[in-house]
Amino acid sequence: MSGRDRLIYLPLGGAGEIGMNAYVYGYGKPGKERLILVDIGIAFPDMASTPGVDIILADISWLSERLDQLEAVFITHGHEDHVGGIGHLYPQLQKPVHARKFTANLARRKLQEKGQDPSVVETAAPYPAMIEAGPFKVGFLPVSHSIPESNALVIDTPGGRIIHTGDFKIDRTPVVGEPFDDALWAEAAKPGIRALVCDSTNVFSKHPGRSEAEVAPNLKPLVAAAKGMFVATTFASNVARLQSLAIAGEAAGRSICLMGRAMRRMTEAAREEGILTDFPKTISPEDAANVPRESLMLIVTGSQGERRAASAQLSRGKYFGMELKEGDTFLFSSKTIPGNEKEVAHIMNNLSEMGVDVVTDDDGLYHVSGHANRPDLETVHAITDPQIVIPMHGEHRHLREHAKVADALGRVGVVVPNGTMLELSGNAPKVVDHVEIGRVYLDGSALVGQFDGVVRDRIRMALNGHVVVAVMVDDDNQILEDTWVDIRGLPEVVRGSAPLAEMMEEHLAGKLARVDTRTAGDDEKLEDLIVKGIRKVAQDEIGKRPEVTVLITRLAAE
Amino acid sequence: MSGRDRLIYLPLGGAGEIGMNAYVYGYGKPGKERLILVDIGIAFPDMASTPGVDIILADISWLSERLDQLEAVFITHGHEDHVGGIGHLYPQLQKPVHARKFTANLARRKLQEKGQDPSVVETAAPYPAMIEAGPFKVGFLPVSHSIPESNALVIDTPGGRIIHTGDFKIDRTPVVGEPFDDALWAEAAKPGIRALVCDSTNVFSKHPGRSEAEVAPNLKPLVAAAKGMFVATTFASNVARLQSLAIAGEAAGRSICLMGRAMRRMTEAAREEGILTDFPKTISPEDAANVPRESLMLIVTGSQGERRAASAQLSRGKYFGMELKEGDTFLFSSKTIPGNEKEVAHIMNNLSEMGVDVVTDDDGLYHVSGHANRPDLETVHAITDPQIVIPMHGEHRHLREHAKVADALGRVGVVVPNGTMLELSGNAPKVVDHVEIGRVYLDGSALVGQFDGVVRDRIRMALNGHVVVAVMVDDDNQILEDTWVDIRGLPEVVRGSAPLAEMMEEHLAGKLARVDTRTAGDDEKLEDLIVKGIRKVAQDEIGKRPEVTVLITRLAAE
Repeated sequence: MSGRDRLIYLPLGGAGEIGMNAYVYGYGKPGKERLILVDIGIAFPDMASTPGVDIILADISWLSERLDQLEAVFITHGHEDHVGGIGHLYPQLQKPVHARKFTANLARRKLQEKGQDPSVVETAAPYPAMIEAGPFKVGFLPVSHSIPESNALVIDTPGGRIIHTGDFKIDRTPVVGEPFDDALWAEAAKPGIRALVCDSTNVFSKHPGRSEAEVAPNLKPLVAAAKGMFVATTFASNVARLQSLAIAGEAAGRSICLMGRAMRRMTEAAREEGILTDFPKTISPEDAANVPRESLMLIVTGSQGERRAASAQLSRGKYFGMELKEGDTFLFSSKTIPGNEKEVAHIMNNLSEMGVDVVTDDDGLYHVSGHANRPDLETVHAITDPQIVIPMHGEHRHLREHAKVADALGRVGVVVPNGTMLELSGNAPKVVDHVEIGRVYLDGSALVGQFDGVVRDRIRMALNGHVVVAVMVDDDNQILEDTWVDIRGLPEVVRGSAPLAEMMEEHLAGKLARVDTRTAGDDEKLEDLIVKGIRKVAQDEIGKRPEVTVLITRLAAE
Repeated sequence: MSGRDRLIYLPLGGAGEIGMNAYVYGYGKPGKERLILVDIGIAFPDMASTPGVDIILADISWLSERLDQLEAVFITHGHEDHVGGIGHLYPQLQKPVHARKFTANLARRKLQEKGQDPSVVETAAPYPAMIEAGPFKVGFLPVSHSIPESNALVIDTPGGRIIHTGDFKIDRTPVVGEPFDDALWAEAAKPGIRALVCDSTNVFSKHPGRSEAEVAPNLKPLVAAAKGMFVATTFASNVARLQSLAIAGEAAGRSICLMGRAMRRMTEAAREEGILTDFPKTISPEDAANVPRESLMLIVTGSQGERRAASAQLSRGKYFGMELKEGDTFLFSSKTIPGNEKEVAHIMNNLSEMGVDVVTDDDGLYHVSGHANRPDLETVHAITDPQIVIPMHGEHRHLREHAKVADALGRVGVVVPNGTMLELSGNAPKVVDHVEIGRVYLDGSALVGQFDGVVRDRIRMALNGHVVVAVMVDDDNQILEDTWVDIRGLPEVVRGSAPLAEMMEEHLAGKLARVDTRTAGDDEKLEDLIVKGIRKVAQDEIGKRPEVTVLITRLAAE
């Protein structure tokens, strides 16, 4: 493992999905590169593919096996899919974490929650300040997004300068936080950009993106015209939106109440870091319960239909003593993330049953996206004028489309999915390795690997039901007659028949009575025979092939 | 139970969801009304709420308990959510089924598949022909939709005329099948309409709907410009679209191959009934495998991402000897139904990885909806000028919005969710009863009730995992030492600890050694003790509360 120094890029998460961002850069002799990690995010589970899982993390074992090569971790911004993994995965990293003040505040809270030392997070100043990390120099280049203080990273290496955009949009009037600064970006690009590693989320959106400032003027008349209680939900991290909503409420003479843990955490962190200075006074949910409904505005979590968030709670009935009713208004100042449609619709239908008027961004400009649309991506390609464009933060189809956009503009677009190591220092970008990657599930308090079979078994039980058989064999390899069958997730009684478990027991009794002692003495053979018997009855009676667990107890001679 | 005759409306399915349509109308003395059923459809399950379920049916037990009152069943059109339940539920109905020829053809196939007598389906002529069914006279009023031969029903009763729209759009150039006939609808409305029971699916779409004829002119240049293989997916029942696609393929010099069972069944039925007359010649998948890719067009099932349909198969690799690759085009001539986003995206990403260019209706006018948008609903309100508007075919929020549209136009809009019996014959519409309703799941070959707990148990196993314990008690109520624990859907080994099942066995061994004979002799107490023990270990070690099944075997004295 030697040769000339090289510059490598290796996404461990985020390039092939929207979520779970974790990107590695390396510089040095092949196999001995000094490394930095950009972002350490989470993805959210769903019932279809990850039932019971709490959160999904990138599998960073490649990196934790090379801890001696790792210099530092850089966090672009405070969204969960970028910083959410820090508390869970810090024990596997153990290196300094760099972020700007608001993001650092959030990262420290996460470390503290997991009993880690929050002082490992160092607060970074914005570009042109640069942080040294081995052969890298990294600067936080402010950029507009849907959370305050998002940053692109300017990554200087002996192999050239890279700009890693993080998540961004081009917003010159972002309401809260730093606007997109064309001049600063142009200045950062001046030395020449080897590669632009670039957000791809909205590459399929063809119109130019809209500014956060366009939302507020629509919120004011909406809230002013409302008669009963006014409830608005949005992403808690969209502090600018929270402020626009609260100001619209205040202008309409309403008391403002924030509900939901994330809502309070975000505004608290934003206040602590001096980002939120114009936010109207808020009241507690306890006090809100005593305010007349026409004088109250709730700003609540749960715009994606999360079961335990405030929106869902309010749609199910009383919450903190408040109950929605006919004449109230509920605004989704948000977009439904693909995959959450049913959950969101469920809340809307519950609200509809209560007589609440639901308003969404289909009814007016009550939401704007936080990501750059295609024309905005083209603008950033033009400003930075990179030799290579590497799309990130997208599913494969987004990455591929974004690479095509780059190609069409005369640059080299390269699709680099998770686990692909790309060398950036040669004449042309070149794939030099494929790294085994996967996902890690936080499941209760345990970390479970994607391929451990745990979730697979859950899905199988959910699809097929589970039959449990207890059988006893004595020391002469005679099967005792008391074979027990218990079923779960299967119909107990099939129309016109005996109970299913009884039919299975009877079938097994007949089968086991004829079993020879060699089979009875062999756990594997006996189990196989029983599983087949159970599945035959299930197939005949209910047309299904259940999961089967057989517990064989062998009685010892007295 | 006597009094004056009354006219009632009772949705058993379809009013509170999109799917599973089943609407009852009745006329006669209260409790003794003569009844008709309109449509008998299915809904589709999903992993989140109905894992393992094959299809979802309306619970029609209210109706099957009143079979002596039921006169007949009328099917408006051939979509699964309107006719799909006929094969499964006919045994509970046992009454003549009326439908027009194409729909009747599909209904007979469904009955045949389930071993029912297909001759119970009678072919109806269109309105002004009327079918007598007790106090009702019912006419099939042709209307445009996304399947040939959709119909509204003109329902004459002594309490007035009702128009039940079925699913519809206003399309005066539907490519295949009957156009919307303003004059015929006006004529049907002339005697005065007591109630319009009306499709609500697209009430939130604010622009007027577009004609099926607008699609074909966009398909032709798209197919003509394609270089490699061209694959298009759409709803198999959209026969007009199939024809437009096939003609575009033929014009580009491509051989046409239909893939997927539903695709073949629909075109076969349409041909048999003389509806499809201009369809280009097709070739079999076997022959298609020998056609050069640039001369081939596949029209395939699976536009909603269904795992076993042709689209999904092609996205996973070789299918019928054909394999997609770089330079091929895959068109989604369809809309993703809410809830299917992830499955559809999964296919698109697989195709992207193969280098296939995916085209969707975001890229051009390659799809139009089959349902009336808000302005079109207003048009139909105006043409029929009913006293009452009863929105159907929608979730609660659609029904409520549609009722508001009716109110705004000076009519009486009434939201009547599933299970609500509305009297239509008084001065004003009035809720007179609430009927217990639910859903029935076809699960393998068994019918399972929504509240039977079967699916609830599956979901619990999927979320929490399942621990199985086998314990033996001798005839002196002494617990034998061989207590067995087996876990499924939980991590086998927790980092740094012994295997989870062993820890549970040890914990139980300690606990059971100290158990008194009274507890050991009582199944319920013993089970309770064991479940608590298992959950304690699980909570401590992995932070989860698993499902637990305990099998207690009591050994008899020899």
